[in-house]
Formats: sequence, C-alpha cells, structure tokens
Amino acid sequence: MKTVFSEKHKLRDAKGELYQGEFVAPFECPRRAEIIIDAVRSRGLGEVLAPEDYGLDPVLAVHDEGFVEFLRTFEDEWEAAGFKGEALAPCWPSRSMTASQIPLHVEGRLGYYALSTDTVMSPGTWEAAMSSKDVALTATDLVLDGKENVAFGLCRPPGHHAATDQFGGYCFFNNAAVSAQHALNTGCAKVAILDVDFHHGNGTQEIFYDRDDVLFLSLHGDPMHTFPHFLGHAGETGRGAGAGFNHNYPLPPGASYQMWLAKLQDALARIEAYDPDLVIVSLGVDTFESDPISFFKLTHDDFVDYGRRIAALGKPSVYLMEGGYAVEEIGINTTNVLFGHES
Amino acid sequence: MKTVFSEKHKLRDAKGELYQGEFVAPFECPRRAEIIIDAVRSRGLGEVLAPEDYGLDPVLAVHDEGFVEFLRTFEDEWEAAGFKGEALAPCWPSRSMTASQIPLHVEGRLGYYALSTDTVMSPGTWEAAMSSKDVALTATDLVLDGKENVAFGLCRPPGHHAATDQFGGYCFFNNAAVSAQHALNTGCAKVAILDVDFHHGNGTQEIFYDRDDVLFLSLHGDPMHTFPHFLGHAGETGRGAGAGFNHNYPLPPGASYQMWLAKLQDALARIEAYDPDLVIVSLGVDTFESDPISFFKLTHDDFVDYGRRIAALGKPSVYLMEGGYAVEEIGINTTNVLFGHES
Repeated sequence: MKTVFSEKHKLRDAKGELYQGEFVAPFECPRRAEIIIDAVRSRGLGEVLAPEDYGLDPVLAVHDEGFVEFLRTFEDEWEAAGFKGEALAPCWPSRSMTASQIPLHVEGRLGYYALSTDTVMSPGTWEAAMSSKDVALTATDLVLDGKENVAFGLCRPPGHHAATDQFGGYCFFNNAAVSAQHALNTGCAKVAILDVDFHHGNGTQEIFYDRDDVLFLSLHGDPMHTFPHFLGHAGETGRGAGAGFNHNYPLPPGASYQMWLAKLQDALARIEAYDPDLVIVSLGVDTFESDPISFFKLTHDDFVDYGRRIAALGKPSVYLMEGGYAVEEIGINTTNVLFGHES
Repeated sequence: MKTVFSEKHKLRDAKGELYQGEFVAPFECPRRAEIIIDAVRSRGLGEVLAPEDYGLDPVLAVHDEGFVEFLRTFEDEWEAAGFKGEALAPCWPSRSMTASQIPLHVEGRLGYYALSTDTVMSPGTWEAAMSSKDVALTATDLVLDGKENVAFGLCRPPGHHAATDQFGGYCFFNNAAVSAQHALNTGCAKVAILDVDFHHGNGTQEIFYDRDDVLFLSLHGDPMHTFPHFLGHAGETGRGAGAGFNHNYPLPPGASYQMWLAKLQDALARIEAYDPDLVIVSLGVDTFESDPISFFKLTHDDFVDYGRRIAALGKPSVYLMEGGYAVEEIGINTTNVLFGHES
C-alpha cells in the first residue's frame, strides 16, 4: 500500500492545549506523524509519496469561504492586534447568544469560527492544514485513477471535527470531506465515509447531513461522556435528502472490541448495501486501550482484524489519518490496520 | 444613600483569566469591591448594611433549575473527576453542533452552561454568587419598602452577562434580573433596567426578551468590536409580547461622553414614557477613559453628571454593581455616580 506524506505537518506545532483546566503540551503533536511514518517505512508497508498541490478549490467545495479566509489571515490579524498568546476563543454564540452578525474584532471572529478550546490557533497551522488536505487528495486520486485499490493519506493535522465553517478538536480542514467531495466531482456517484476514530466525526456529519451521495457512519465514544459532547447521538440519522444516510454508533466508557465490532459489522453491512464507488476511512487509533484521552479497550491485534474486515468490502478504499494519542504505539496500531487491509 | 455589602464577595477569587490567549490575573478581582467600599465609607455616602438571606427562590424565578444545580455542585464534580486546574469549557454547542442533550460528563456540562472562557469556575464561586444576589435583593427591598428612594447594592461577582442558563463574562447569577423579578413578584407592575456598563448586558436582555413588564436598555461597546460579541446589536428590540421593550445603544471604539450622553438621553426619555415603578441601574464604570479592557472615554466628572440625570427621572432607583477594571479609580468613579444621583 502506498502512503502519501508531507513533512509540512510539522508546521502545526502548538505550544499548548487546554485540558481539564490546565495548559498542557498538546496531545496532537508532530511526533505522532513521525512515529507513524517510521512504522510505515520500517515495517515495509510500501512506497511513500509526496503530495500534489491541489490549491484551495477542493477546500472551498465543502468549507465556507469566510471560514477559509479566517484561517488564512488569522495569525497576521492576531499579531497586528498585539496579542501574544496562542489564540483561544473568548466567547461563542451558543444557546443564549445569536450569531446574527460575524464580529469584526479578531477575538470575536475566533469565537464565531471555533467550536472548542482544546485547539489553539498557532503560526504555521494554515500551511500544515493546506499540506494535510493535499496529502488526503493525492491519496484519494491514487485510488480514483485506478492505479491502486487502497492508499493511505498520513494527514496531520487531522480533519473530522472541522465543520463547514468551524475548526476545533485539532482539526482545521475536513480532509475526509474534502476528499469525498473531490471524488464526487471527478466521477464517483456515491462515497461512504467510515469514521473509526474514538471521537465522533461531528464535522463530517455536519457537512453531509442533508445529502444522500455521501453515506456517513461513525463508531465513537458516547458524546454524553466525551468530546465533542454536542453531536454524535444515535438519533441523528440525516435530514431532508440525507435522511437515513447518517449512522452514529455511540459506545459507553470501557467498551470492548467485541462491543465495537458488533457496531462495525452493522456499519459494514450498510456500506455494502449502499454500494459506494469509494470508501474513505477516517482512521483514528485512539480506540487503543492505553490511549490517554479515550476510553475504549482495543488491543494491537484488534486493529489488524478490523482492517481485514474493511478490506472484505472489496471497495476502492482510502485511509486518512485522524486521531490517536498513545504516541509511542501509534505507529504499530496504524500500520496494523493497513497491513490487516492487505492481508 | 445606603449601601448593601457583604465580605463574602471575597470567596470569588479565581487565580486565572484567559485573556488574548494568555492566562492572566483576573481583571474581576476582590480588590475591586474593597476599593469601592472604602470609597463609600471615606467619602461618607451613607450607612453600610449587611444583606438578608433570600435563599434560592428569587434565583429560580429567572434562572433554569438545572443551571443553578450545575453551579451549586460543580466544584465537587470537578474534583471528583480528578481535574486540577480552574475550569474552562472545552467545547460548546455553537452553530455546527446542537444541544439536543445535556452531556453527563462534567466537562460537557461545563461547555453547555458556559458562554465564555474569560470566566473560570473556582472554589467559593457559588457562595459568593449567593451573597451577591442577596446584596442586590436587600438593596432592592430597601427601596420597595419605601424606606429609601435610592440604594446601592455593591454586588460582586457581577451579574448582567449571566443568562437564563449560562454563566460567563465574570457573571453567575443575574443580580439585576433576579431583583427585577423580585420587584414584580412583590407588587411592582413594571420595572426598567438601565445598563450603563461598558459591555452589553446580554444575560439581562435574554432573560426578559419576550416580556413587556421589564424594559431593558443598554449603552455599550459595539459587539462587533468587543465582548460579548454575539448579542447587543441595535436591531434587537424584543420579541412577541416583548417587542419594543429592548433597546440597545452600541457605540464605536473611542466614543466620547458626548456621544454616550446622547444615547443616555434617548434611554431616559424611553424610561420616562414607560413610567416604571422601579428603575434598576446595572452600574459598570468600565466606560472610564483608562479602563484596561474597554474603549469609551468617560472622565471622573462624567460619572457625576449622568448620576444626576438618572436621578432626574424621579423614580425609586437601585444601583447594582457590575463591571469596572481600572481598579485604583473604581471607587471614585462608582461613588461619583451615586453622589451625582443625590446631588
């Protein structure tokens, strides 16, 4: 299996993350991608390619133009305002306040476009996010071109929490959504996105919630108990033309692989029935038993097993990297899924 | 003029405030109230009284029961979860996420009930907030009982940003709203709340937005340029039975007293036409020219002048303390308004 990777991921290197009321070193750090690419190489998964430059058009096909411009210009504005720290939203239009107008002040716009405080804005984030969506698109095109049946886009920063016009949860552009829309724009009629990250793919759900040309399925920690807390319930099944094309599988704290697998099998059956032209896997390995910010109990071998099961769909597939914070074991867990797919 | 004051305000003593991306010592600090009470005493404003205990009923008359319970139990839950830092919301249901269910996890509930990150939860906050609403209610009853024509409730923490079920902007219970509802419940037919704090009183607006028995008027920095960013526009004039009973006067950066006074005169004319039984003044003195987080240009003398103009309404009036962060001058500015009223 070929891997697409760019060293530019390192440009996303925030100093701090707000976690349980304290600023800590970010869980989502450059070392994650370094350990994964080392495992790809040392275990001989296959060739490693650099991404092509796709520009902004594929991003603007799913993200709001004002949001994209906000991400592009933010650091200059923050600096021009004389602010010194890494940027966190000071307030937001939730429930008792409206978003009837987008504020002019940089802190107000930050609060408008953010959905969480775990994720600071930092210098280099824009360039890293641009590179990450190029990694995703290049991997997708390897499969769409028919050269490969499966490919791995080693995206960083991740993408699945990024919504049409909000960033958060370590995500800025939604790489899976950008890639799915690209596939639809270049010949596919239907795409399935299977999100196996520990956290609900709220951004991907939101982007495609009204549509039937993208089937979205997410297995994740119950939002009643974990981030992102405000989307990902089982009752969210799509709206309008998208009704019936969104499937959430929230699982409780301590869920075993057996419990998780039962949901995966349901999801795979739905993908099979949908018969998509392409399957995009939002691959987070924070389902691992010793992940520091998650609560599922998957072991090394379980990752091999589910990669094999996804491959059994027999569909062209692209794996795009999302989360995973047991950093020293992120390489083995990620490549276990990919070797499982090829076995 | 009598002042109601409690030393319990000191129990709200957070260590940090998130400001422009850095944790700084909170602008809203115990020293603010100490300097005001010193000025009240040294300048001989009048007797200083301790508050009566009103319990929770007047709070529950305007605030959501789940929200109040959240504030009451938060510190124990945060500690039980093993979290060490002062508590800031990690994510929130703004725009791309819904609030279809209230999370069970303490961090999720925090994100549900918070509207900003400037305000951490901290031990002692509940007791201080309970004392602050008692200060407000005691001052209000001094006037409602007919013993006084005017009284000053030296509330801390402040209240006007607190909504039906959200805290933020240094506020937990909305002291002005609690007092207005108490007045309505004990014989008044109509109450006007005049908010002269630099920041929009988003909580007070939200609580009474559908009602015609409370006229709300707020002079403040344009939310396009300052906190709370997502409420306080001129076009927000009330809804349903409340249509026409909400008046916002947003003013641009650098606004002079002359500009501010023109808006005050309009507000006072509206209060006169409304003919309320009681006027509650949400008194913030962060309109002062050297306030560190605001952008109006009022001078010491301007505070005397507008106190005199409010008094000219000839209505029973209660002043309740809100913001003001030029701490060394907060005593003179606050008492200038009150002496202006009595002159």
